[in-house]
Amino acid sequence: MPFELHSQLAADTRHVTSLALCEVLLMNDARFPWCILVPRLPALRDFDEVPAPRKSEFVSEVDRVSAALRTLTGAYKMNVAALGNMVEQLHVHVIARQRDDDAWPGPVWGVGKALPYDDAAADALIDGLRQTLS
Amino acid sequence: MPFELHSQLAADTRHVTSLALCEVLLMNDARFPWCILVPRLPALRDFDEVPAPRKSEFVSEVDRVSAALRTLTGAYKMNVAALGNMVEQLHVHVIARQRDDDAWPGPVWGVGKALPYDDAAADALIDGLRQTLS
Repeated sequence: MPFELHSQLAADTRHVTSLALCEVLLMNDARFPWCILVPRLPALRDFDEVPAPRKSEFVSEVDRVSAALRTLTGAYKMNVAALGNMVEQLHVHVIARQRDDDAWPGPVWGVGKALPYDDAAADALIDGLRQTLS
Repeated sequence: MPFELHSQLAADTRHVTSLALCEVLLMNDARFPWCILVPRLPALRDFDEVPAPRKSEFVSEVDRVSAALRTLTGAYKMNVAALGNMVEQLHVHVIARQRDDDAWPGPVWGVGKALPYDDAAADALIDGLRQTLS
């Protein structure tokens, strides 16, 4: 079975870029600068299931997105997580946190309702991510 | 400044074992089988800050603990996360989730109150982890 992006991830995000291994997506929630990485490999659920030959590439892409998002947003702290209790396809959350954001110091999941970006704000962040990651 | 385990992590956990890079701790919350890995390197806050020469060792230890906890508990899903909004010393949560646990399908942080292990139950899980990881 080839890789196919889970429909819920597609519905909740905008596409940023395709790295060598992972799709990079932007969660459509302007409250938190929040990327999601999805390795284009079939049938992965858990973080430890990425095959050994692709592991360092996988982690390196997570780190690159984390550093890019930190730089672009001036984040106080980066949160990195692979949960997948609701959407089981392996995906890694990379979230830029500020001490005055709507969920601080708790985690962002399940807090209030997503606030969709307006197009200009989403485009600006996506452009910044593409440039920083390229 | 040498490595020193954050006092809050020490207070919330029992010691499981020392791997080559990380201290492995067990959160003292019987509701969720939940390990925490802390690399013994000073001044790390974020997941992407582990120095490149130690990165694969770091991730490999996270994966080993995840696989051990899955095997020992028959977890339905593993959650892996580096948040650190409250305790800034880099630590990675590895949590065995079941579809009938007290937080499912949400994340475990901030849900209710920790239920401390009785000594026998903690010792059994710690012994199992030590044997599986050794």
